[in-house]
Amino acid sequence: MRFLRIGPTGAERPALLAADAESAFDLSALTPDIDAAFLAALTPERRAEIAARADAGEFPAIEGRVGAPVARPGKVVCIGLNYRDHAEEAGQPIPAEPVVFLKSSDCVVGPDDEVLVPRGSEKTDYEIELAVVIGATARYLASPEDADAAIAGYTITNDVTERAWQLERGGTWDKGKSCDTFNPMGPWLVTADEVPDPQALGLRLSVNGEVRQNGSTANMIFNVRHVIWYLSQFMTLHPGDVVNTGTPAGVAMGLPNQPWLSVGDVVELQIDGLGSQRQVLGKA
Amino acid sequence: MRFLRIGPTGAERPALLAADAESAFDLSALTPDIDAAFLAALTPERRAEIAARADAGEFPAIEGRVGAPVARPGKVVCIGLNYRDHAEEAGQPIPAEPVVFLKSSDCVVGPDDEVLVPRGSEKTDYEIELAVVIGATARYLASPEDADAAIAGYTITNDVTERAWQLERGGTWDKGKSCDTFNPMGPWLVTADEVPDPQALGLRLSVNGEVRQNGSTANMIFNVRHVIWYLSQFMTLHPGDVVNTGTPAGVAMGLPNQPWLSVGDVVELQIDGLGSQRQVLGKA
Repeated sequence: MRFLRIGPTGAERPALLAADAESAFDLSALTPDIDAAFLAALTPERRAEIAARADAGEFPAIEGRVGAPVARPGKVVCIGLNYRDHAEEAGQPIPAEPVVFLKSSDCVVGPDDEVLVPRGSEKTDYEIELAVVIGATARYLASPEDADAAIAGYTITNDVTERAWQLERGGTWDKGKSCDTFNPMGPWLVTADEVPDPQALGLRLSVNGEVRQNGSTANMIFNVRHVIWYLSQFMTLHPGDVVNTGTPAGVAMGLPNQPWLSVGDVVELQIDGLGSQRQVLGKA
Repeated sequence: MRFLRIGPTGAERPALLAADAESAFDLSALTPDIDAAFLAALTPERRAEIAARADAGEFPAIEGRVGAPVARPGKVVCIGLNYRDHAEEAGQPIPAEPVVFLKSSDCVVGPDDEVLVPRGSEKTDYEIELAVVIGATARYLASPEDADAAIAGYTITNDVTERAWQLERGGTWDKGKSCDTFNPMGPWLVTADEVPDPQALGLRLSVNGEVRQNGSTANMIFNVRHVIWYLSQFMTLHPGDVVNTGTPAGVAMGLPNQPWLSVGDVVELQIDGLGSQRQVLGKA
């Protein structure tokens, strides 16, 4: 199933995407939001019930702006340098274990919302990533295989980054990662049962129509299961949390002439089966 | 005024500390929680109204476990190496600008709750810090003086840290900062009007009765106003967010024989005018 959230910023309503992906059903009668409580209770039986009620025409149509597919995440945990080619373009060694950082969840916006170049920024960059949405508490998982039970589904993240602030201003990466609007997410939360192999998804990002990133989750250094298992040894993942799993090569930092994002640029992102995003850059 | 939250974990009720600091009044009739909405509306007039109603005996007494004084913060932003003596003991240069990192807000617990040594941890450490609670949105503040209007008040944080995971496991510091229970907070949110000079507060932390940290906020490298102004250039601070402003010297990492925390240890923290905390170390 593909869940989404439709409505003005801060007033999104939970929705279910129709099979044709052209329309959506308002799930407000079912749940107040696509949030931790909804995800934690999303058993196969519950999914079947929702599908049956949708088929029976119980939920009205809804349209409008698409927000992030999960209500404000409890936390957004990110994996850095998780594709070999990206670590190389960043001039960093291949990590021996996952590189972990946090992004403030208040910079999560909808998939097609404006992304703001921060004031004083000279190196705003993009990063397409497979995002994992947590559906069950993951704490000290015994093995990577146990991660499956903790994953509600998948979506797309643009892990927007101010490179100078991430790397050149002292401290940890977080300074360049949590500016307003720096985490477009969506359009859909695709439940894990509809993503048979999360390690076989093409990811593509273009800027002003020019393809910049064209990778595959097959090339992750640490796969999704490993990442979730690993994180669970250091922090507890809760339903509604999101894990951004890293970006393949092609970010502006790694390209000739470093084509940083500017106001007016159009960034488009797509991951196989997870839909697409389109952001226009604005000014903070 | 001194606000606090009383009740079992996850079911705390908002409360007002009585003038004698020995009892508290249940504010449930006034507000559902000490949260972003409550803090954003906490004008001097509102404070006066609450005080008058408390004096009139309108709020019943409440007692029980003390939780963190703010409902789950939207984010917890931390300043690293913000005391000269701590930067020196950590073997780090004096920072030219604030060092910023994030802590997941789901590791915030009450001031006297058990702190869990994570599984596999060998270097669990303590850090007493002055925590700033945000009361109004701070975004691109023009000057450090503008920070005052964004500060609701102050409390105590123990920025518990797994040093090996922070510093020796690759990636950013966040890996050793967001384990379960790693941010005891409280006991009270003391409103800013009752903290005439946040740069003149003694901070003391002891382990098993032995004083380990004994500093003063006078020795911050970047003072509270500067920190809030600075952060607002990189991320927007919202009501209910918390900023941990760094720790003075005396952490286990910097002491002879590095006396890391162990199960059964008792950690006590105190900041002038902000009350005290007491945690017993347990096992995750």
